[in-house]
Amino acid sequence: MNDLELDAFLRRALAEDIGHGDVTTEAIVPAGARARGVVRVKASGVIAGLDVAARVFALLDPASAWRAEAADGDWIGDVPHDVAEVSGSARALLSGERVALNLLQRLSGIATASRRAVEAAGGRLTILDTRKTTPGLRMLEKWAVRLGGASNHRFALFDGVLIKDNHIRAAGSLGEAVRRARARVAPALRIEVEASTLAEVEEAVRSGADIILLDNMTPAQMREAVAAIGGRARTEASGGITLANLAEVAATGVDYASMGSLTHSAPALDISLKLVEP
Amino acid sequence: MNDLELDAFLRRALAEDIGHGDVTTEAIVPAGARARGVVRVKASGVIAGLDVAARVFALLDPASAWRAEAADGDWIGDVPHDVAEVSGSARALLSGERVALNLLQRLSGIATASRRAVEAAGGRLTILDTRKTTPGLRMLEKWAVRLGGASNHRFALFDGVLIKDNHIRAAGSLGEAVRRARARVAPALRIEVEASTLAEVEEAVRSGADIILLDNMTPAQMREAVAAIGGRARTEASGGITLANLAEVAATGVDYASMGSLTHSAPALDISLKLVEP
Amino acid sequence: MNDLELDAFLRRALAEDIGHGDVTTEAIVPAGARARGVVRVKASGVIAGLDVAARVFALLDPASAWRAEAADGDWIGDVPHDVAEVSGSARALLSGERVALNLLQRLSGIATASRRAVEAAGGRLTILDTRKTTPGLRMLEKWAVRLGGASNHRFALFDGVLIKDNHIRAAGSLGEAVRRARARVAPALRIEVEASTLAEVEEAVRSGADIILLDNMTPAQMREAVAAIGGRARTEASGGITLANLAEVAATGVDYASMGSLTHSAPALDISLKLVEP
Amino acid sequence: MNDLELDAFLRRALAEDIGHGDVTTEAIVPAGARARGVVRVKASGVIAGLDVAARVFALLDPASAWRAEAADGDWIGDVPHDVAEVSGSARALLSGERVALNLLQRLSGIATASRRAVEAAGGRLTILDTRKTTPGLRMLEKWAVRLGGASNHRFALFDGVLIKDNHIRAAGSLGEAVRRARARVAPALRIEVEASTLAEVEEAVRSGADIILLDNMTPAQMREAVAAIGGRARTEASGGITLANLAEVAATGVDYASMGSLTHSAPALDISLKLVEP
Amino acid sequence: MNDLELDAFLRRALAEDIGHGDVTTEAIVPAGARARGVVRVKASGVIAGLDVAARVFALLDPASAWRAEAADGDWIGDVPHDVAEVSGSARALLSGERVALNLLQRLSGIATASRRAVEAAGGRLTILDTRKTTPGLRMLEKWAVRLGGASNHRFALFDGVLIKDNHIRAAGSLGEAVRRARARVAPALRIEVEASTLAEVEEAVRSGADIILLDNMTPAQMREAVAAIGGRARTEASGGITLANLAEVAATGVDYASMGSLTHSAPALDISLKLVEP
Amino acid sequence: MNDLELDAFLRRALAEDIGHGDVTTEAIVPAGARARGVVRVKASGVIAGLDVAARVFALLDPASAWRAEAADGDWIGDVPHDVAEVSGSARALLSGERVALNLLQRLSGIATASRRAVEAAGGRLTILDTRKTTPGLRMLEKWAVRLGGASNHRFALFDGVLIKDNHIRAAGSLGEAVRRARARVAPALRIEVEASTLAEVEEAVRSGADIILLDNMTPAQMREAVAAIGGRARTEASGGITLANLAEVAATGVDYASMGSLTHSAPALDISLKLVEP
Repeated sequence: MNDLELDAFLRRALAEDIGHGDVTTEAIVPAGARARGVVRVKASGVIAGLDVAARVFALLDPASAWRAEAADGDWIGDVPHDVAEVSGSARALLSGERVALNLLQRLSGIATASRRAVEAAGGRLTILDTRKTTPGLRMLEKWAVRLGGASNHRFALFDGVLIKDNHIRAAGSLGEAVRRARARVAPALRIEVEASTLAEVEEAVRSGADIILLDNMTPAQMREAVAAIGGRARTEASGGITLANLAEVAATGVDYASMGSLTHSAPALDISLKLVEP
Repeated sequence: MNDLELDAFLRRALAEDIGHGDVTTEAIVPAGARARGVVRVKASGVIAGLDVAARVFALLDPASAWRAEAADGDWIGDVPHDVAEVSGSARALLSGERVALNLLQRLSGIATASRRAVEAAGGRLTILDTRKTTPGLRMLEKWAVRLGGASNHRFALFDGVLIKDNHIRAAGSLGEAVRRARARVAPALRIEVEASTLAEVEEAVRSGADIILLDNMTPAQMREAVAAIGGRARTEASGGITLANLAEVAATGVDYASMGSLTHSAPALDISLKLVEP
Repeated sequence: MNDLELDAFLRRALAEDIGHGDVTTEAIVPAGARARGVVRVKASGVIAGLDVAARVFALLDPASAWRAEAADGDWIGDVPHDVAEVSGSARALLSGERVALNLLQRLSGIATASRRAVEAAGGRLTILDTRKTTPGLRMLEKWAVRLGGASNHRFALFDGVLIKDNHIRAAGSLGEAVRRARARVAPALRIEVEASTLAEVEEAVRSGADIILLDNMTPAQMREAVAAIGGRARTEASGGITLANLAEVAATGVDYASMGSLTHSAPALDISLKLVEP
Repeated sequence: MNDLELDAFLRRALAEDIGHGDVTTEAIVPAGARARGVVRVKASGVIAGLDVAARVFALLDPASAWRAEAADGDWIGDVPHDVAEVSGSARALLSGERVALNLLQRLSGIATASRRAVEAAGGRLTILDTRKTTPGLRMLEKWAVRLGGASNHRFALFDGVLIKDNHIRAAGSLGEAVRRARARVAPALRIEVEASTLAEVEEAVRSGADIILLDNMTPAQMREAVAAIGGRARTEASGGITLANLAEVAATGVDYASMGSLTHSAPALDISLKLVEP
Repeated sequence: MNDLELDAFLRRALAEDIGHGDVTTEAIVPAGARARGVVRVKASGVIAGLDVAARVFALLDPASAWRAEAADGDWIGDVPHDVAEVSGSARALLSGERVALNLLQRLSGIATASRRAVEAAGGRLTILDTRKTTPGLRMLEKWAVRLGGASNHRFALFDGVLIKDNHIRAAGSLGEAVRRARARVAPALRIEVEASTLAEVEEAVRSGADIILLDNMTPAQMREAVAAIGGRARTEASGGITLANLAEVAATGVDYASMGSLTHSAPALDISLKLVEP
Repeated sequence: MNDLELDAFLRRALAEDIGHGDVTTEAIVPAGARARGVVRVKASGVIAGLDVAARVFALLDPASAWRAEAADGDWIGDVPHDVAEVSGSARALLSGERVALNLLQRLSGIATASRRAVEAAGGRLTILDTRKTTPGLRMLEKWAVRLGGASNHRFALFDGVLIKDNHIRAAGSLGEAVRRARARVAPALRIEVEASTLAEVEEAVRSGADIILLDNMTPAQMREAVAAIGGRARTEASGGITLANLAEVAATGVDYASMGSLTHSAPALDISLKLVEP
């Protein structure tokens, strides 16, 4: 994660919530008042975003102090559990609380969902995320996926090749699409092709694709595809993957399973920031 | 909604996903190729974000054409249903698809959750959102809440006064906190105070607060509070409000119920953008 | 006031004045030279902007030291009077002087004008500012108004409702306009309606407006309007309010008087920054 | 004036006033409603900012139409006088009105003050502005000065050399300061030196300075300085120049007189934007 | 290439050169004057940047017209040759000329150098660029490399893995470094490892690296390394590659040769923009 | 040089190269690892950019330490020579290395080329740069020119007047063009006019131009022009000036010679940043 980008993101998030000022806090709390806040995890899960929350308060009060009792990526099983403490300007803590919590809860939710998927897969395949992230939060959401133990698929359209049916149609054939991609993209990037049928899988193998995305296949079809590929390309199961069918998918022999739900549907983890007197 | 702010947001979202370029599409799809895309709603709900998706494609291809068959806020009951169509540069459609969909699905999910809450309340109270939104997306998420028929609470810390226990502690007393707020904030803003007990409710009424937030009360406590207030202030139920208990909460006589879940936990609506030959 | 926004504003202000470099200073003053500057108020008034000036120099020289002998909002009666001192890099002081002074003089002028209006009103009504501020400086100018003891009207179009004749015409009637506003805006916001005649005042009362703006009325008309309203709404006098007629306006019983001149016509306070040898 | 910079400035100004939305207008005025607005000058003066106001509305509604009956820089003597008309989206006109007017009034005030100074000087010297402008608005304010017929001094610290007493002290002597400046700055830039006494004037001439700023001198001193310089450098009178003493200053033979009041104290010109039915 | 990013870059470039205004042009050329400009290539090479230059003028004058007689990537052999023509506002053409030319000359220089390297390699290996680009111009410079017929190495630190000696030292061993990279990065990314000696090459092969960078090897060493690798990984020659030794390097059997000089030392192509009367 | 602008530039440069993260380094190098790097100059020349490189590392690791053994502008004759050392986070050093080096090498190349030109001129004329700089890097590149001992021409279109043939055509005559420029631009700016023939030179003198640019003249023509001008204006030789003919040009008596090659064609200086164990 790039800390300079993180700061730029947080400045925008704080501008959105504070704007010209926190009118309640400025009216009531003296500029010099101090406070202490405790981050309390209230439901079991993987904590993610402590470093981010610390940075929120550091931006609002460079003299604030942050003490973490847990690290991002830790499983917090025994709840409620206090994982961090911040002390500093009472105004900074009151004005920054919501942005810090909104991020902590969302990122911990994603990390927790990722951890659950990894466990369900039982080590037989690698869980990947997707580009179905919240616009503006991809760096953070993909970081949370890693904290949960899953892996990242390409970050964006610029760092990975994924040839879909529309690309194939534009090129005239799957083979021609792969050829064009190879000619244009850096050697550092593998070529992945989407296939929905066994015929497409076979064409993808012939084209020399490095990874074949098995699009919305049933476990039975996946198994057949894996057999047909015979190790000549890596395989990614995509579409309709849930905690419920992950074990079955893993048993088909695919290398990766990608799950959009890790980022677009992970329920927030219940976390509070309790302000107390200093 | 401010269209200039929307454009600035979308430019950042597109920069995040496209960066220096969509390497797959640039390699395979000729610059002059044309395509047509159809927005298909695949699960019943309130559609929200069509205007936003249209803008995504307009930014990438100012000459693209957008035709909507439904309006933001419409209930799409009979699914699958095609609600809009875009035609333009094939590159623009392929490169913009994910950002458009990520927003459409999230906003439609929020609008749908809002609609369901409004229906559960049966018109006996007003459903409000909260500041538990995704950093950077608040303008859009609160717009989706309105499209679903619910109402907005304050947008941010700058356009509403909500006095919490920490503010009260800093001021010395609830009455002093209210007095300081009145002295500082614009007459355009009402003063809202959080109360957890009947004693606090009564103190809030005496202080002249305009709105009293009943914090994490049971329906029985809410009823008691409403009675004690006797119309001298408006009342907002907050904490633990769900579709399941909304009817019961509404029956207590509170004026508003605020639900963070409208924005932080609304499941995405299933929507696809199918590209077809022009 | 939001310090992060202040910094962003000051960076732009410094970029405007320094650009690629202060050619005179870079040519003549060695990088390591030190200097000391004294902020001298040369005309009586309310000082406003010391914290801002301090921040200007901190941005240019993080190691600079600022010592204030007065606080923002203080009345400086016995002039000339030295209110602050800055020491640091001579280059930083020379390059930052004009931006610091341009802000100090303007903000102190506004605070002083606000103080004079408050005194003229004699506590019988509340003096409000308007949106007639300098584009880009509203946060600072409204802060200066408060430092002078007056109060802020809504900050912008997003945090207050003010229904004018054009809104009424678009809605068809004043009552319909108020109804639409109530249905859309957060409960935190009061509804204010502009009225130019007694008939409009009465219609506004009937519509349930919270505040009625008496637009360009004579004191006699204001008195009549206040009587007609009979406490059912608050009242704001607006248009043509000057120091000369404030006492007369206050005697009519209106709650507020708004004055655009506080921000758009306050003469700058005479303040200098005298650089001396360290 | 650079139009791309103007747009960037106006986007920030509109963001400041509209933020996430104009809640009154969005609640009451339908998206499709049309309106027409008339810019009316109500006090005699030089109109400045019509092109800027047109751009405000174009940003909010690219389809809006602007028709000007006067040009920036025209003297509007017979008032009230309608100088321009805009038609477009009613929402755009209502939401943009204040930003457009705030700029029109301020810039016209500056242009008018500049015109008055030029007239008072009677063509015997050139009126210059200073860097005492509003942070963020310098490009516009200096444009208004030119529209009023006066001239610009250096724009900022980067496009002109002005050696003040602190620079001289840092260099050790006036001569050394001039020498350092010549060695560093582009040949395109003349060297100006501040002098408060006749002795300093003479030293400045000896140093080869191109322009000598006569700092806070009386007309008698100026006359003496001009005589001593004898055409070997240009001369600028600065400090305490007012409409009242301009003729006297002009009679001393100085080439330029600079007046901070053109930008920091010009009263706004009374201009309104009256919205009417389309 | 991402057109939205291009526009943002060009706006900054124009701000740098035009700032508050082109004082010469604004003083002399009337706002309504028209002009026509001809882009003339005066030395043989690959033209690159016509689309960029067109965009420069479109930003300054949206109504300007651009007509290209050649396409980016064309070899212009018979010089002088007019490759494009722009007509529009004379002010826009005069103010944009330098930014357009600075980019055209630099990008054409890079494309030409790339073409020469590709020709020298005779199709026996693939020429790659590096990250030795001008800060801020990487998207454009790497586009120019492709226009010249060479290929891109990774764009930046985020879209490719290159393990250098410092990474290996931090990991403890080359094998451990590769293992850590595999565990962290997306499957879309290949793993490249730098090797300076045959021993390191062999360790890299054993670690399962996908690509081995042969760092500053002589052609003889490269040949030995290629033989030792025996097709188990791709090979990239890096360090000291010039037009003079490319044929010799190509003969060693390496797959890629990367050349920093394509971007950091390509001499600008001689191109002018001659303005003529419309 | 303006340090705030430098930081903004470097943040963009780092965003370009690091984006969402340096995937190799984050995968392999622990967050807490420390490293030390040595800046080694490997070819003789003027070092330029040490302060810039220091700032790159300070942005990535505010706790990093920088120790310079040479100052920007020093001639490094005896190579290889270690000129600076940085210690800090190993991740920061690895991720910042390329941006730091890309700038150091380019700026040192420019400074070295400038030094060579100054030496070739032997003090008989002043060497100037041009606006043929890299878009976005002008402040840095012109600083490097000064570090090499040469001088800056105008920075941009906003801080110097240069009247070219197109301006003259638009004005109708050279005299009219000069007159318009004098009337519009600040007294701080001299007027420079381009002349290609002796007739134009004479017209320029008559117009009162301050500086005459002798455009693409032979040394013989320059000599003639200088004689014709007879000290009534300064003279700048421009076009085709190289190290080879500088002495000859200097002998003609022109005051300045401007060389675009200082910035657009200076070969990079060979500099490395060697990371070592802490």
